[in-house]
Amino acid sequence: MQPRDPEFRARIAAAFAAQGLMATLGGRLVAMEPGRCTIEADFAPGLTQHHGLFHAGVLTTLADNACGFAAMSLLPPGGEVLSVEFKTSFLRPASGLVAVARGEVLKPGRTLTFCRADIFVRDAAGAETLVATMLATMIAAAPEAR
Amino acid sequence: MQPRDPEFRARIAAAFAAQGLMATLGGRLVAMEPGRCTIEADFAPGLTQHHGLFHAGVLTTLADNACGFAAMSLLPPGGEVLSVEFKTSFLRPASGLVAVARGEVLKPGRTLTFCRADIFVRDAAGAETLVATMLATMIAAAPEAR
Amino acid sequence: MQPRDPEFRARIAAAFAAQGLMATLGGRLVAMEPGRCTIEADFAPGLTQHHGLFHAGVLTTLADNACGFAAMSLLPPGGEVLSVEFKTSFLRPASGLVAVARGEVLKPGRTLTFCRADIFVRDAAGAETLVATMLATMIAAAPEAR
Amino acid sequence: MQPRDPEFRARIAAAFAAQGLMATLGGRLVAMEPGRCTIEADFAPGLTQHHGLFHAGVLTTLADNACGFAAMSLLPPGGEVLSVEFKTSFLRPASGLVAVARGEVLKPGRTLTFCRADIFVRDAAGAETLVATMLATMIAAAPEAR
Repeated sequence: MQPRDPEFRARIAAAFAAQGLMATLGGRLVAMEPGRCTIEADFAPGLTQHHGLFHAGVLTTLADNACGFAAMSLLPPGGEVLSVEFKTSFLRPASGLVAVARGEVLKPGRTLTFCRADIFVRDAAGAETLVATMLATMIAAAPEAR
Repeated sequence: MQPRDPEFRARIAAAFAAQGLMATLGGRLVAMEPGRCTIEADFAPGLTQHHGLFHAGVLTTLADNACGFAAMSLLPPGGEVLSVEFKTSFLRPASGLVAVARGEVLKPGRTLTFCRADIFVRDAAGAETLVATMLATMIAAAPEAR
Repeated sequence: MQPRDPEFRARIAAAFAAQGLMATLGGRLVAMEPGRCTIEADFAPGLTQHHGLFHAGVLTTLADNACGFAAMSLLPPGGEVLSVEFKTSFLRPASGLVAVARGEVLKPGRTLTFCRADIFVRDAAGAETLVATMLATMIAAAPEAR
Repeated sequence: MQPRDPEFRARIAAAFAAQGLMATLGGRLVAMEPGRCTIEADFAPGLTQHHGLFHAGVLTTLADNACGFAAMSLLPPGGEVLSVEFKTSFLRPASGLVAVARGEVLKPGRTLTFCRADIFVRDAAGAETLVATMLATMIAAAPEAR
């Protein structure tokens, strides 16, 4: 996939930094290629559901961003995205040291971009387990343009 | 809908309190009836996406919990739930002072409970606007039982 | 909700008639109001899954159309829609004489329209049971415009 | 993935043959391996939406079955599945001679099986284009067991 904005990494880094929620959850933008984005967060007691595992909402948030930034990487200069909708399936309990969301663009478009993300947990030995998967639709538009 | 556990409110309050993420996001359990649950969070800079609005991940987290606790309210004593999957559609930008997720059970079951949630933002005058909606599937089981 | 095309019923009737699949499944457009549409199909052995009940694909097809035409009813003259995505939850086995999909617009838009549908089965006494529910996103555009 | 029933192909062929809808739509079970299933249908005027392309409901039906049979292939003797829910994203208009749904199991389970399917159209030269993708949840149970 070909980026239409050579400065897409800077544009996405700025958007990431502007998201208050990423600081709150400890999210890190660890990889960014055209049409692909990886976001991680370390386990912390402040990210848990009632069994002490990663909350589904945390996994979904990381995956939403991984999809959104993957979509944004293919837009022209100034391009931003909003989440139209997403669905997440939770395959296994998310017990691990790091949550890793890898998003990719399935089909770019002028208006809509279709994405998917896989969400893993990584253990102390670096082994990864798939714990959830997402399908997402992103729209390239300012809020008022919907 | 009839609760099978007269102590369901205490059971849910304990689960809510055990979720580190609810403290992190400032979530409040504001209403709990059999098959229905409302969770709110005040706007804060730490809950935002890159336009300064409520992040889709925050809205989804509140709705996931509203659905999960609505499902849990109908289980027998000791019953807990896990999220199997959910889908959220984002109808409008979520600009407001408070995010409000109202979850309800569509169909209870021994194993699976189907739920829906509507997510609103409330402004300073108390007016609410629907900003998102969720369909969710919950499973009544400990993690190992899947 | 206000239609922008006073001839919306004729436009939708023509689109319905142009769908070969509706004739194949025996679908009937039984009600059409601005932002709302109801489609039915009688039970037949050719519509079944392997237990002899309505196939999930039939219920989904009726609901997709009920949502699509509900969205189309609010577009300007000439407006057509395509399904961007939908999710269906199957609450109960769909045993009955008639399948009834009632679609409605949750949020109209120039580009995207968000819809939901409830799907019922009706028995010989006319009683209806909710068997499935859908959230759908429709786009107002010709295929090449995506 | 290891089948627990050496006769899984016969069990699935019988279920496929018992689905009236597959005969109605001209569905063919063209490949069946443990945890994987491919179903095809030739284009026909009776399978169309209002632009004369494959109807989203046809693509979804084929993918639902591809996921369901992929899940069923891993169950013990006698095992059947029901669709709990699925979501389909429609990436491109489905114009082609054959619709092909390839389903696979992401995570098998005693109760729930998580699946995904990709849906392609094949042209006269045999080239395939991805037109839709599905995430599905299946439950291993008779209807009354939900």
